[in-house]
Amino acid sequence: MKLDKLCGERFKEWPSDCVVDSHALMIRGGYMKPMANGIFSLYMPLKRVTRKIEQIIREEMDAIDGQEVMFPVCMPANIWQESGRYDSIGKEMMRFNDRTGSPMVLGMTHEEAAVHLVRDYANTYAKYPFMIYQIQTKFRDEARPRAGLIRVREFTMKDAYSFHTSQEDLEQYYDRCYKAYERIYARAGLPNVVAVASDSGMMGGSVSHEFMLLTPIGEDSIAICSECDYRANMEAAESIIKNEGNTETKALELVNTPNTSTIEDLCAFFSCKPQDTCKAVIYQRNHDDSFIVLFIRGDLEANETKLTNFLGCNIHPAVITAESPVCAGFTGPIGLDKNVTVLYDTSLIGLESLVCGGNKVDYHYTGLNIARDVGEVEYHDFAKIIEGGICPKCGKHTITVSRGIEVGNIFQLGTKYSKSMNMTYIDSEGKLQNPIMGCYGIGVGRLAASVCETYHDEYGPIWPMAIAPWQVHLCAVRANDPEVKAFADGLYEKLQAQGVEVIYDDRSVSAGFMFSDADLLGVPVRVIVSPRNLKEGVVELTTRDKSYSEKVPMDNITEAIEALIKKLS
Amino acid sequence: MKLDKLCGERFKEWPSDCVVDSHALMIRGGYMKPMANGIFSLYMPLKRVTRKIEQIIREEMDAIDGQEVMFPVCMPANIWQESGRYDSIGKEMMRFNDRTGSPMVLGMTHEEAAVHLVRDYANTYAKYPFMIYQIQTKFRDEARPRAGLIRVREFTMKDAYSFHTSQEDLEQYYDRCYKAYERIYARAGLPNVVAVASDSGMMGGSVSHEFMLLTPIGEDSIAICSECDYRANMEAAESIIKNEGNTETKALELVNTPNTSTIEDLCAFFSCKPQDTCKAVIYQRNHDDSFIVLFIRGDLEANETKLTNFLGCNIHPAVITAESPVCAGFTGPIGLDKNVTVLYDTSLIGLESLVCGGNKVDYHYTGLNIARDVGEVEYHDFAKIIEGGICPKCGKHTITVSRGIEVGNIFQLGTKYSKSMNMTYIDSEGKLQNPIMGCYGIGVGRLAASVCETYHDEYGPIWPMAIAPWQVHLCAVRANDPEVKAFADGLYEKLQAQGVEVIYDDRSVSAGFMFSDADLLGVPVRVIVSPRNLKEGVVELTTRDKSYSEKVPMDNITEAIEALIKKLS
Repeated sequence: MKLDKLCGERFKEWPSDCVVDSHALMIRGGYMKPMANGIFSLYMPLKRVTRKIEQIIREEMDAIDGQEVMFPVCMPANIWQESGRYDSIGKEMMRFNDRTGSPMVLGMTHEEAAVHLVRDYANTYAKYPFMIYQIQTKFRDEARPRAGLIRVREFTMKDAYSFHTSQEDLEQYYDRCYKAYERIYARAGLPNVVAVASDSGMMGGSVSHEFMLLTPIGEDSIAICSECDYRANMEAAESIIKNEGNTETKALELVNTPNTSTIEDLCAFFSCKPQDTCKAVIYQRNHDDSFIVLFIRGDLEANETKLTNFLGCNIHPAVITAESPVCAGFTGPIGLDKNVTVLYDTSLIGLESLVCGGNKVDYHYTGLNIARDVGEVEYHDFAKIIEGGICPKCGKHTITVSRGIEVGNIFQLGTKYSKSMNMTYIDSEGKLQNPIMGCYGIGVGRLAASVCETYHDEYGPIWPMAIAPWQVHLCAVRANDPEVKAFADGLYEKLQAQGVEVIYDDRSVSAGFMFSDADLLGVPVRVIVSPRNLKEGVVELTTRDKSYSEKVPMDNITEAIEALIKKLS
Repeated sequence: MKLDKLCGERFKEWPSDCVVDSHALMIRGGYMKPMANGIFSLYMPLKRVTRKIEQIIREEMDAIDGQEVMFPVCMPANIWQESGRYDSIGKEMMRFNDRTGSPMVLGMTHEEAAVHLVRDYANTYAKYPFMIYQIQTKFRDEARPRAGLIRVREFTMKDAYSFHTSQEDLEQYYDRCYKAYERIYARAGLPNVVAVASDSGMMGGSVSHEFMLLTPIGEDSIAICSECDYRANMEAAESIIKNEGNTETKALELVNTPNTSTIEDLCAFFSCKPQDTCKAVIYQRNHDDSFIVLFIRGDLEANETKLTNFLGCNIHPAVITAESPVCAGFTGPIGLDKNVTVLYDTSLIGLESLVCGGNKVDYHYTGLNIARDVGEVEYHDFAKIIEGGICPKCGKHTITVSRGIEVGNIFQLGTKYSKSMNMTYIDSEGKLQNPIMGCYGIGVGRLAASVCETYHDEYGPIWPMAIAPWQVHLCAVRANDPEVKAFADGLYEKLQAQGVEVIYDDRSVSAGFMFSDADLLGVPVRVIVSPRNLKEGVVELTTRDKSYSEKVPMDNITEAIEALIKKLS
């Protein structure tokens, strides 16, 4: 490819709407152009990167016996009604009617389509197990697209679906896929992606893992044990609190506490620690706005995912007005409106004397003993795990919390979809059974952005050879010099004839301009042909990461380039 | 791939809803499954076929300096409003609002997206010419999907867009693309696809060609000259009529003609030929239902595409009631309501005495001489070309009409999109100009179906090697025989290790069952390992088209297979 005709604008200025490096560099480097919020067109360099990523994914999916198929982007609503997700998924799913008035949806995931495709075929146990996958465009109407390709509305995704006749078989396959994912990230240049236990969310099922690239710009929080191999998404990490101290019983007393609607104010007022307070965190159910009050130790935060899973419905932070059945800033367990759902976090177990809201403005109780003053209540885990918290696996206070980008996920779905969509097979004993499913996703564009996020400098991306848009960036400095032009043209043709992927810059621009464009394109091997070099009988060979630079005799240059490509592959 | 786990049902019965062979065979062979009207999921064999077709297209597009990019499937309406097509395209375009209420569309073609992607970049003449293309899912809400993958609503298409600074440059590139298309069809196994002049329809622009596979099941009619190289879609073919005879002038006379509302009745009544009548073909404009009457020689038919292009609006056959300004079956040029748009086809030129409607029930005029009785009128070409008609190129009566499937199209768009979307560049003299565009499409699935339509027998498709789902179909007949199993397993591994694409059937089924499945999968080379063969020390090697069958010594089989693959490639 000749650079002078490569579509895409390259420029130096940091775009004002970019908050992460990969987003800024992909805009500055002519990789993509936004068309609407969270919707991008890709220029050739990024299309080449994503195609290479897709090919790596394809090879690894084929290696674990995956069958590449293709599901529609536009689906009739009826299969989503069968699974129940037509109603349970909210505004993220795009809906419309076709010309006949039939309701349609845009695919944001394809469990329903996968079951539809194989449910007639896979009617006896002998046809199991199998896995089907596709690499296809998806649309998810995200409320807050951000960070370029990290969170978009339209994206290319590899989604795979496996079907099994036993949980053991699913688990075996799940493990094969887990390992295939590790190979995919390693091949794409991200060997340090870690798998973490995750919440299954709208997918259903029980066991699931997310593959996380640990980076400060990540959207997810991940709890990692520094002593054992425990890793979990904050959403899914069990919070274990062992209360020591605070075992002195006091009498319950209602106290006037003006201007103490926050835990901070309250602790200052009573000279106590947040751990000695019983905080109320208040939500409302999305479907009927009914109230939920979670009581939790004052220093901890509520984990909304755990609450949602426990309640079986979506919730939002409460909007409290004069008509609400709770008193903002002063809600406590004693005398609370009976229509409110009350939950207790396990962090309150063993605390004998707490400060809590008095359910009227400017009043708190002190000396709260839940068992004595409220009665026997059920405690569940609703808290976010904390830095320095107890590891659920090894039991030590060794939890650290990091940020991560989710670059893939795998789910053990169980029979959620096969049951709801009535997919059955006859087992070896002649009985009808629902197959057990797994599903496995990787977002292609997000992975490309994650690699860029990991490998870049201030001048541009530094693509790993395996997914670089080209292998070699050939710069003819002073291409108006006939000798330079002739040598560079010849080299370009020779390399191409040998199957090397070359981007060739023979524009009449300064070397500085040329090199800053090359930095933005991030091609791993750079070859510089210039009058000065040629006078010395050499060509300059460097790497984009600036770790290598050598002058190679003109006659040996193709061999040297091929050796360097091999070394970097 | 092991056949025992290949997803997809294969069966013998012709599906009742299939009217063309490729549709029936692709359903019977487990290639695809319908999810809704005109929407299919693809199983692995068809996905492999389409991926190979995509790769051929990609290579040929790259060879003419195409840059592969990616446009969104879901686009904001605003760029379609800029070009004006948001309003001019009808129900085929799917529209919806996103969660913020912004109007969106599903891409059915991407001229707007192409201009959006490059209009900031390509701001000076030095950046031209260039071509960008994508291979991406499209949605077009066809009123009448039919014939399997021939006419669908969701489809994968390669669409390319070129940008130029002069008409000459566009024409040169158009010609390169034309030749690239010929190579694509030849490589995919369809060397006999012909290019025909076509109507540009909703794309705009002037010159355009369709690439047609001539087949009786085609949806398009194509006029072909048997003497010269003239070929055109019926929609675009110029109709040339030279009237000889009928030069005798008669007086105009109103005649009572009961029960003669058709040309046939009329000719019987007057004992004349249809060529001696002036037929009225009546339409209404879609937007206001106003009437259009086309007068045309009685033996010819109206070409709606020509009418639409002339009128600049969409039309439909008139619905005539008592209130209509025309008299059904008796409409003629004399005394016609003034509010009706009247058009005359060139086929009426030179006819001195015609029978025409009297504009009242059961009356016709005889002796009509248009110039004398109506006055000077304009004649335009509104007729369909006819079998045996005059070739617009060589002038002989050598036109034949054939059916064809459109497997690709190329358009010279001119400045329609660059002007409406305000894409400009500075030319070498410093002046602002709109670039000139071309666009070039190929439907991937339709091409796959066309190949299947061309190469099949009653038992299944006969895929050409270049796009076959696999190269070799290995059958282990009586795989429960340990010797058969061991030899076939070994051969399977050996072939795979050598990079041969093999589908391997080692199921415990009869040879007949195995072979009919193999026929449905249509893999070009078949290898049969059986107890009887092995006893003779041979393996049977055949081709799917039944033209070749040989027994090859066991020791030479891999070489023989590779030689046969090479021969068929």
